[in-house]
Amino acid sequence: MSFQKLDDLGHKLEALEHALSILGADEATHMAVGGGEKRAEAMSNLAGMYHAQATSPQIADWIADARDEDLNADQRIALDEFERNYINATCLPTEFVERRTAATMRSEQLWRDLRAKGDWNSFLPALEGVIGLVREEAELRSAATGLAPYDALMDQYDPGNRTAGIDAVFADLKSFLKDFVPTALSVQEERLSRTPRKALNAPFPIERQRELGLAAMRAVGFDFTHGSLAVSHHPFCGGVPTDVRMTTRYRTDEFLSSLMGVLHETGHALYEQGLPKDWSHWPLGKARGMGMHESQSLFVEMQIARSPEFWEFLLPVVHDTLGADALAGWTIEDVLNEVNFVERGYIRVDADEVTYPLHVILRYELEQQLVSGALEARHIPEAWDAKMSEYLGISTINDAKDGPMQDVHWPGGAFGYFPSYTLGAMIAAQLGAAMAKDLPDMKDQVRRGDFSAINQWRADRIWSQASRGSTPDLITRATGEPLNADNFKAHLQRRYGA
Amino acid sequence: MSFQKLDDLGHKLEALEHALSILGADEATHMAVGGGEKRAEAMSNLAGMYHAQATSPQIADWIADARDEDLNADQRIALDEFERNYINATCLPTEFVERRTAATMRSEQLWRDLRAKGDWNSFLPALEGVIGLVREEAELRSAATGLAPYDALMDQYDPGNRTAGIDAVFADLKSFLKDFVPTALSVQEERLSRTPRKALNAPFPIERQRELGLAAMRAVGFDFTHGSLAVSHHPFCGGVPTDVRMTTRYRTDEFLSSLMGVLHETGHALYEQGLPKDWSHWPLGKARGMGMHESQSLFVEMQIARSPEFWEFLLPVVHDTLGADALAGWTIEDVLNEVNFVERGYIRVDADEVTYPLHVILRYELEQQLVSGALEARHIPEAWDAKMSEYLGISTINDAKDGPMQDVHWPGGAFGYFPSYTLGAMIAAQLGAAMAKDLPDMKDQVRRGDFSAINQWRADRIWSQASRGSTPDLITRATGEPLNADNFKAHLQRRYGA
Repeated sequence: MSFQKLDDLGHKLEALEHALSILGADEATHMAVGGGEKRAEAMSNLAGMYHAQATSPQIADWIADARDEDLNADQRIALDEFERNYINATCLPTEFVERRTAATMRSEQLWRDLRAKGDWNSFLPALEGVIGLVREEAELRSAATGLAPYDALMDQYDPGNRTAGIDAVFADLKSFLKDFVPTALSVQEERLSRTPRKALNAPFPIERQRELGLAAMRAVGFDFTHGSLAVSHHPFCGGVPTDVRMTTRYRTDEFLSSLMGVLHETGHALYEQGLPKDWSHWPLGKARGMGMHESQSLFVEMQIARSPEFWEFLLPVVHDTLGADALAGWTIEDVLNEVNFVERGYIRVDADEVTYPLHVILRYELEQQLVSGALEARHIPEAWDAKMSEYLGISTINDAKDGPMQDVHWPGGAFGYFPSYTLGAMIAAQLGAAMAKDLPDMKDQVRRGDFSAINQWRADRIWSQASRGSTPDLITRATGEPLNADNFKAHLQRRYGA
Repeated sequence: MSFQKLDDLGHKLEALEHALSILGADEATHMAVGGGEKRAEAMSNLAGMYHAQATSPQIADWIADARDEDLNADQRIALDEFERNYINATCLPTEFVERRTAATMRSEQLWRDLRAKGDWNSFLPALEGVIGLVREEAELRSAATGLAPYDALMDQYDPGNRTAGIDAVFADLKSFLKDFVPTALSVQEERLSRTPRKALNAPFPIERQRELGLAAMRAVGFDFTHGSLAVSHHPFCGGVPTDVRMTTRYRTDEFLSSLMGVLHETGHALYEQGLPKDWSHWPLGKARGMGMHESQSLFVEMQIARSPEFWEFLLPVVHDTLGADALAGWTIEDVLNEVNFVERGYIRVDADEVTYPLHVILRYELEQQLVSGALEARHIPEAWDAKMSEYLGISTINDAKDGPMQDVHWPGGAFGYFPSYTLGAMIAAQLGAAMAKDLPDMKDQVRRGDFSAINQWRADRIWSQASRGSTPDLITRATGEPLNADNFKAHLQRRYGA
């Protein structure tokens, strides 16, 4: 039976994914410094085995034959996802993949070196090469999927994402934010003139911060029988659904950035832990995509953990774990002044939730032009500066380091990924609004630190659905309305508006 | 070029080994408790991929063709080891391997349950099944290698080990020990009547014990850029040569067992870290075998770390790390009274270095009879008791738990492994004696905590040789004489004799 062959293949691919995920997490947390070269060699070989098995020509026959088999409803949808994955994995010729891998690896290495120096001119030839390959890739993916070239790139990260839908939503959000950012800043200025920001009683010992992070994870529903928290230079949520590897990093002079990071990654972790176990070896059983994943982390971080209700619950936990001196005398408002501080900045990853979407929309607009050929790499600095000036009122001309050289995505050839970040923020707000209708006492539950009903709602509508449906389908099914910016705008209005 | 194909295969197999080793170490140290089932499934699939690739019929052709190619000296020896591995991997039919794997898995699970209850009668049928399969396996391996059945089993663990050589050496050692154990015990009794054993100033906090263990590892040469120390229930040395994963466990009421365990595992680790890097993907580049590996751990633990010279170096380190109260007022002799305490006991893994070989020789003698059919499983308890009574003067009749049910080896089907332990102790003593001739001031070096010349000697003669030559060949090349019991007997005489 051909479906059975796909099922068996799924188990083998899951084993290789398991190894790659755990080896990847281990590399960042427990590997000895001298182990990197052999680790890279091993992972590259395992990835090669994965690719060879996932692209075997027999699979096309199994998929075709399975269409005529007596399959149940789950198996039929599973088959669609097997096919989608197979097309994505096979639509690029091996010769092209090798050229692209070599070029993006060189470009990323160069970028790591030149970004620190802000040396745009030396980096430009490498970026031009990568963009040339990305245009080729977009055409190849377009031919295989029937999508427009940029849509075909986006579809890898969030199946169903189309510029036709995203353009309008982002245009709406952009026009709102261009006015709203100045409003939020002046509301904040006025508020801080009444209640100024307080200083923290540092130091905060790492062991205590770890206890606080674990308590916060436990409270919002992290299952410690299927995951753990470690330390790494760049925080991440990795591992496998049955053993989620979360990390954070600590500074002893403050604790809020680690804590909020832990809550963000916990959102990712809950999604993984909540995926349907029986489908774990099928593409259908994986998390839907990057935008949906980001919505789960941002739901915990933005919708929950930066709200006044959450801090009514968490402030006593902070005192229990960090000691009574931590945040001594702070009100909820003092905490919110810190965790919801808004400012115009150059760097996307440092941005607050109000200004962040403008960083993303800028990139979304530029990368469409870069893929279509309407913009050439040598003109990025001017185009970047023009949009930063227009959207955030700050100039990046002559500052490539904190301008177009700040992200790894383009040097790595990952075009079509950026919109997922803001998509995630909008989905999170849309889920929050739908949930508030279904759970009228949701705020009281958060005040009590009771996340059981909230998580059950998310499990039913998102986690258990895995890849059952495209990203837009999942959004509509979960919230009763198609993706839009209204709920996110309303969220920002409530939190930062006049 | 066929050798090149073997070389490429070596890289793929090394990647899978890397994954299996790191996943195995991770499972015992960092895995979430609920991650076990998926981890087992992933590792079993990866092991299946390893087996499929290592036993592919093309390999026989590559080996044959490579014989006619223009190879350098290293490549020729590498080819021999490729062939030895291929024969070992392919000499059992798949049908047999599946039967054996299923039977030993069931038997091991049953053993875990029934050993605690000492329920020999319930366990006997499973053990009979395993022994039947071991006899089959010995015949199959014998047919493939041309060795006698039990030799063919031993050859998996220490290539070149033959009963023809081991029988005589073990007979010599046994006859020595039957007299020497009573001597050592009465010498000890006399000494302890003059200087009684001291009590330890517990508790010893785990963090401090960890510092002591790390200091001891560093002193004897562990390279922390290529390895680390973690905690696990059963201490082990795993991982890969570029990233050795060592573990220990701690009790707060004493620290010597953890410390000596760390030193033992460090001996294993130094061997792995010292293997030739350029051959890491060839069978030739692996550690030679279990006996040689055990010789490296026992060299550090027995030849070095239980000597008075070592404690002249280590006592101040103990005070620096555990505090001045730890071993306050203890002389070197007081320490040696603890770490070199001899007693007759039932349990092999708890035995001291004087009585340990008798536990091994008993098993070596019985398992030869079990493989040949001269002994049946139902008669093991009487045979075990007779030998324990003869060799150590203690009876295990009606005590299967602390008698023939104490080890996992037989329930797991690992026959031919036990002699490696005592082989290791004898090789360690033989290496120590040869080294003392080459390094006349070796004892002073140990007193100073200077292990550079000692480790260089080991690196030249053992670590860098990897699998270049059989176990007996390596012993003779390293020490100038074939394996014998004389150096070990002399070592015991010096340390425990009158």
